[in-house]
Amino acid sequence: MSNVYALVLAGGSGVRLWPRSREELPKQFLSLGEGGTLLQETMSRMLRVLPPERLYAVAGAKWSALVSFQAREAAPVSDGFLIEEPAARNTAPAILLGCETLREKGASNDDVVIVAPSDHLVKDVARFAQALQSAVEAAHAGFMVTLGVSPTRPETGFGYIHCPSARQKAENGYFQVERFVEKPSLELALRYMESGEYFWNGGIFVFTLGTLYREMEQASPDLYEVARKGCASFLKDFETLPSISFDYAVMERASRVAMVKLDAGWSDVGSWDTLYEVLDKDDSSNAILGDAILRDSEGCLVDSRYRLTALVDAKDLIVVDSPDALFITKRDTSQKVRGVVEKLKADGRKEAVQAPESARPWGAYRILCEEDRFKIKRIVITPGRRLSLQYHHHRSEHWIVVRGAALVEIDGQERFVHEGESVFIPKSARHRLGNPGKVELEIVEIQGGEYLGEDDIVRLDDDFKRT
Amino acid sequence: MSNVYALVLAGGSGVRLWPRSREELPKQFLSLGEGGTLLQETMSRMLRVLPPERLYAVAGAKWSALVSFQAREAAPVSDGFLIEEPAARNTAPAILLGCETLREKGASNDDVVIVAPSDHLVKDVARFAQALQSAVEAAHAGFMVTLGVSPTRPETGFGYIHCPSARQKAENGYFQVERFVEKPSLELALRYMESGEYFWNGGIFVFTLGTLYREMEQASPDLYEVARKGCASFLKDFETLPSISFDYAVMERASRVAMVKLDAGWSDVGSWDTLYEVLDKDDSSNAILGDAILRDSEGCLVDSRYRLTALVDAKDLIVVDSPDALFITKRDTSQKVRGVVEKLKADGRKEAVQAPESARPWGAYRILCEEDRFKIKRIVITPGRRLSLQYHHHRSEHWIVVRGAALVEIDGQERFVHEGESVFIPKSARHRLGNPGKVELEIVEIQGGEYLGEDDIVRLDDDFKRT
Repeated sequence: MSNVYALVLAGGSGVRLWPRSREELPKQFLSLGEGGTLLQETMSRMLRVLPPERLYAVAGAKWSALVSFQAREAAPVSDGFLIEEPAARNTAPAILLGCETLREKGASNDDVVIVAPSDHLVKDVARFAQALQSAVEAAHAGFMVTLGVSPTRPETGFGYIHCPSARQKAENGYFQVERFVEKPSLELALRYMESGEYFWNGGIFVFTLGTLYREMEQASPDLYEVARKGCASFLKDFETLPSISFDYAVMERASRVAMVKLDAGWSDVGSWDTLYEVLDKDDSSNAILGDAILRDSEGCLVDSRYRLTALVDAKDLIVVDSPDALFITKRDTSQKVRGVVEKLKADGRKEAVQAPESARPWGAYRILCEEDRFKIKRIVITPGRRLSLQYHHHRSEHWIVVRGAALVEIDGQERFVHEGESVFIPKSARHRLGNPGKVELEIVEIQGGEYLGEDDIVRLDDDFKRT
Repeated sequence: MSNVYALVLAGGSGVRLWPRSREELPKQFLSLGEGGTLLQETMSRMLRVLPPERLYAVAGAKWSALVSFQAREAAPVSDGFLIEEPAARNTAPAILLGCETLREKGASNDDVVIVAPSDHLVKDVARFAQALQSAVEAAHAGFMVTLGVSPTRPETGFGYIHCPSARQKAENGYFQVERFVEKPSLELALRYMESGEYFWNGGIFVFTLGTLYREMEQASPDLYEVARKGCASFLKDFETLPSISFDYAVMERASRVAMVKLDAGWSDVGSWDTLYEVLDKDDSSNAILGDAILRDSEGCLVDSRYRLTALVDAKDLIVVDSPDALFITKRDTSQKVRGVVEKLKADGRKEAVQAPESARPWGAYRILCEEDRFKIKRIVITPGRRLSLQYHHHRSEHWIVVRGAALVEIDGQERFVHEGESVFIPKSARHRLGNPGKVELEIVEIQGGEYLGEDDIVRLDDDFKRT
């Protein structure tokens, strides 16, 4: 009886969904509609076909705290579920590191691995699970399997899968892939769409370990060498590896590749425009998230979770509100957001990099106000969690408990602080904040001082010790 | 040698510039571009032709604190400069109350009164002053004088002045008015524009007291009766008066009316569209206030003083950002904002009424964050000012001094609080906050409790005692 494992690729940065996504908070960590974050929804989808103890994620150290926190909110993953890649080398090294880890944990050549990106969106989770089941079957038949999506527009930003045998066939089952083709021109993309023989690569790969190794030995023998010497060795060599995608290193060179059709409302949410396509829309074709009033407007996407937005006489607009930045553009040109973010970075603007709201292993925070002399944050700490013992050279802090019970340690002294009470942390005092209670602890933190950068922190132990 | 007085009509509410203006913060109290608020700029314009001790304002009690504060920031007005009308009865009673007050202060029949609204904008202050001088001359010649603006668009929302003798004449000097005409249809407005004989009424009236009384005795004898019995009597009768405009009660019925042409970039800023017309624009016809990045956009108005706004591929959009509400509409339809505000009020939304940022006699405040269990405000107190002694039934407050020195009284005990220090005000504690120092006092206030409405306050004395 063989097992099915999942490897979720959870690292990686991008700013195409700015201002929701930032350099330090890429889109997999965002919730874009209903439900959890893209990462959490990806994990939930995997749990439809395998149990939590066989669910793993791969990410760089930079992302591990955030991945851990969000993952544990979503599922009872195992302690070692997060496989840390020492450096960003694209998907092939990451996936191979994941597979070698699974092997060392006892996975056999007959076991199936499902590899999935963490930043895609799927509307029909049941049909997605069915497609995965077909893919697992195809994997057992010795194929390297990929999921293919019928194009809904002449997309020039993706590579395509040429799979003539899948044309006009019922969805179930798997079809042999003829070849992978590179990103097309607009004209070619239109022909692909019309032909019915070309499919978008959904980025999901399914294979048995045995098939992977067999194909790799032929297709990428050098990489195969490095990746089969055990994790310790692999990790040591990792940074010397070339940055190479799994598509290129394995899929495009494999001898037996099959495709399963995926018709489940899939989107790579690579832009605000593609998100608009998959969101529910009202009778005027408006997709509204959050607090918004629309009058005489159609074809708009409004993401207004932080404040009220009133939109009048607007046609085909994308409006995205965030606590510190607002983005408005015309539909069909949202890719221009990249130029905006580049300019912001060139100007040294924090709005390109810093996320006004984010999660940490102990909970979440949101910056309410930031001036050069003070910064106010709202902090939420999950029951049982606490921050690291730390101190700051340049700032003092006031904590006011808005809800719940706090356990505060300052220069060795502990005390409880309750709703309506406050505590003052002088500059350089060693302090720790934790939530010993049963409900979420909500605190307003006012930082003051000559320098308020997040890097002015000396940690004396780690965040995220379970109390 | 006769004197010139100014009466600035400083009360009055409206929400056509929502979300900048709110029911409790109408547009005369807002700064719409460079410089001070519309009220302050109006007062500055008056000071070009008369000294501060002859500058007066008329407003209802509801507005007096705000008017006093903003006026004193702008000019060394006299202690009794603010004439309080007991009720809102449109402009005729207000102006007559103002004039009777001036008379009791020693104004004679030869003295000139300039009446001006407080919520208009004028770009060329020098030419405005010249127009006023011409108007004063015409007033001395026994006319009721009004300032007329050549129409720049076929406006159907104003009444017009028919002044054929002013057609194509050089600006200086004054011209006899034939008659006032009511708001025209679009077709008629176009004909008016083309004829060169019709002018918008700028809302500014200039006359000697003697001329006013002479004309009123004929035109509105009943009103004349009531208004000439002295202020005490007038104030007592005030609420019995009909709501009637000065245009209707006096100007439209007067025997000798003259017009001075006003060509000084005047605007009644009655809508976002009219504001767009008068603001400076860049090469792409964009008017930008605040922190905004525009790409491939033209003909837009962006008011983004609180955060960064990035606008891409936008054409003829109006974007107005405020701390708690965002408004986006297409140019030329900004009057639809009324419908939005009506809906907000019908839904009981605070964003229609409450201003997130406003001034008080002691300084200014801004609401940074408002949740049902806590509210955070940033408060700035002018040197020498203090708040009233007060207490709250339902909330406690933490004050953290960010800048400056505070003098705090709690239940009879006084203490100084300095930068980085904080103070806690328990529910129902009698407290007062003041700025005894030389620099502005900046405080972050965190309110917490079961009810945070602004009406939970018991004042034991008045705001705005100079310390």
